Amino acid sequence: VSRTVLTAAELDRLRVVLIASRNPLNIGAAARAMSNFGSLHLRVVHPYDVAFREARSAVDAEPVLTAAEEHASVSDAVADCGLVIGTTDGSRRTPRETLERLEAGAALLCQHLRSGGQAALLFGSEKVGLSNQDLSHCDFLLRIPTRTEHPSMNLGQAVAIVLYELVRETGTEPTTAPTVSDPIATAGERERLVSVLLQALDRSGYIHKGHDATSEERIRRLVRHLHLTQSELYEWMGILRQLLWKLENPQTPPPIEN
Amino acid sequence: VSRTVLTAAELDRLRVVLIASRNPLNIGAAARAMSNFGSLHLRVVHPYDVAFREARSAVDAEPVLTAAEEHASVSDAVADCGLVIGTTDGSRRTPRETLERLEAGAALLCQHLRSGGQAALLFGSEKVGLSNQDLSHCDFLLRIPTRTEHPSMNLGQAVAIVLYELVRETGTEPTTAPTVSDPIATAGERERLVSVLLQALDRSGYIHKGHDATSEERIRRLVRHLHLTQSELYEWMGILRQLLWKLENPQTPPPIEN
Repeated sequence: VSRTVLTAAELDRLRVVLIASRNPLNIGAAARAMSNFGSLHLRVVHPYDVAFREARSAVDAEPVLTAAEEHASVSDAVADCGLVIGTTDGSRRTPRETLERLEAGAALLCQHLRSGGQAALLFGSEKVGLSNQDLSHCDFLLRIPTRTEHPSMNLGQAVAIVLYELVRETGTEPTTAPTVSDPIATAGERERLVSVLLQALDRSGYIHKGHDATSEERIRRLVRHLHLTQSELYEWMGILRQLLWKLENPQTPPPIEN
Repeated sequence: VSRTVLTAAELDRLRVVLIASRNPLNIGAAARAMSNFGSLHLRVVHPYDVAFREARSAVDAEPVLTAAEEHASVSDAVADCGLVIGTTDGSRRTPRETLERLEAGAALLCQHLRSGGQAALLFGSEKVGLSNQDLSHCDFLLRIPTRTEHPSMNLGQAVAIVLYELVRETGTEPTTAPTVSDPIATAGERERLVSVLLQALDRSGYIHKGHDATSEERIRRLVRHLHLTQSELYEWMGILRQLLWKLENPQTPPPIEN
C-alpha cells in the first residue's frame, strides 16, 4: 500500500476519539495538534469530567475542543465509521487484533479515507490505554515505533505524531484507486448485526446476554473479522432476523415465502 | 535524498537543544519524547529558571532531563556539532536561511549522523521561537508541515514529531498477510458451514431446501465472501449448530451452559 498526501476533504472524514482521558491539558494538547494538521473532528467518550468541561469552555480553548462531540459509549462514537483503528504502545498483549506500525497502518487509513470512507482513530486513557472492550471495536491497532525500554507516550504527543504521519509527504508514489461500488459497512451497521446475533444466541442458550461481556466481545470480533460490505451486511441481517423470528415464534408458520 | 533507519549509535550523535523554554512541563514532555525514541542527549540554554531546576530534580523526572547539560549560550551548546538545524513554524520571514520541510530536512540530518558527524537540533521558546541571533548558528531550518491557519505547535509535540521522523521506517508494508498459524478454511469446510446454515434457514422458513437452487447459490456465495479462517469457521459452525438445535427443539432447555 502506497499513498500520496491526503486532501483536506479526505482528512475531514477522520474522527479522533479520546476515551476516558484523565487530564484536560492532554485533551487540549490533542485538540491543538489536530488544529495544526487540519483534523478538526474530535469526539470524547466519558472524559474526567468537571475539569474537561472547564477546559472546553475556557476563553482560549481551541475551536476543535469547543466543537468536540461528547459520546456516551465507544460504539456510539464510532457508529458512522467504516474503519476503526485503536492505538497502543504495544506493551500489553493483544494477540487477537492485527498490530501495525504507524507507517504502515497510516497508509491503510489514508487508503480508506481516500476511497470515501469515514474512519475513527481511538486513543485510550493516559493510565491504561484502551480496554479490551474498546479493542473489540477496532479493525486493527496502530503502534508508534517507540523504544521497548520506554514505549508509553504522552497522549497529546501520540495524537500529534499519528496526525503528522497522515499529512507528511511521501515520494512520488502511484495512487491505488480502490473501488467504491459496494462500500464497507460502518461500525454502526456492524453493531446492529451483532445485536441481532446476540439476541438469537441468547434465545438459543449459546450465551447469556447481560451476564457475559467476554462472549459479547468475542461475537463483535467475529463479526468485525467478516469485513462485510454494506450489501452483504444487509443480506446477513435478513437471514439472522428470520432465524431470530423463528426462535421467538416456534409454533407460527413462517411469514416469508420465497 | 533517501535514507534508511538510523542505528542507535547514529542517533546517539544527536543533541536536542532547548533555548529559553519557559514552561517546565514542556521541557519534561520534550525529555519524555526523547526517551521514547532513544534520543538521550538534551541540552538547555538559559531556561526559566527555578521551576526548571525543580522539575529536573523531581523524583519522577525523566533520566534524560536529570542528565541534561545546561549551557550559557547557544554557541557553547552547539560547539561540538558539525551540523546545526533550527526549527521554525515558518510564519516569521527568514530569508537568509534555507527552509526545508521536515521530511526532506530529516533526511539531510540522517545523512550527516550516518556519516559519523554530530548534530544539534534547536528549538526556541514557546512565545517567540528562535531569535535571529539563534538562527545565525543554523545551517538550515526545519518546518513541520502544519496548516498556515495554525502553524505554531506546542514545544513538546514539535520535539516528538521531529524525532519520530528520524526513526520512522520508509517503505514498510502493512502486515496484510494473515498469520500462517490460522489458515484459510478449505472449500470443503466452508461447504459444511453452508449445509448447517441451509438447514437452519429451511427450518425458519427463509428458504425451502431442495426447491430453491438460487437461494442455495446465494448463501454459498455469501459464505465464500466471508473469507473465514479455519478457527473462525469452527466458531461460526458452533454458533449455527446451536441455533439449528434450538430451532429443532424449541421446548427443550438449552444443553450448553457457558
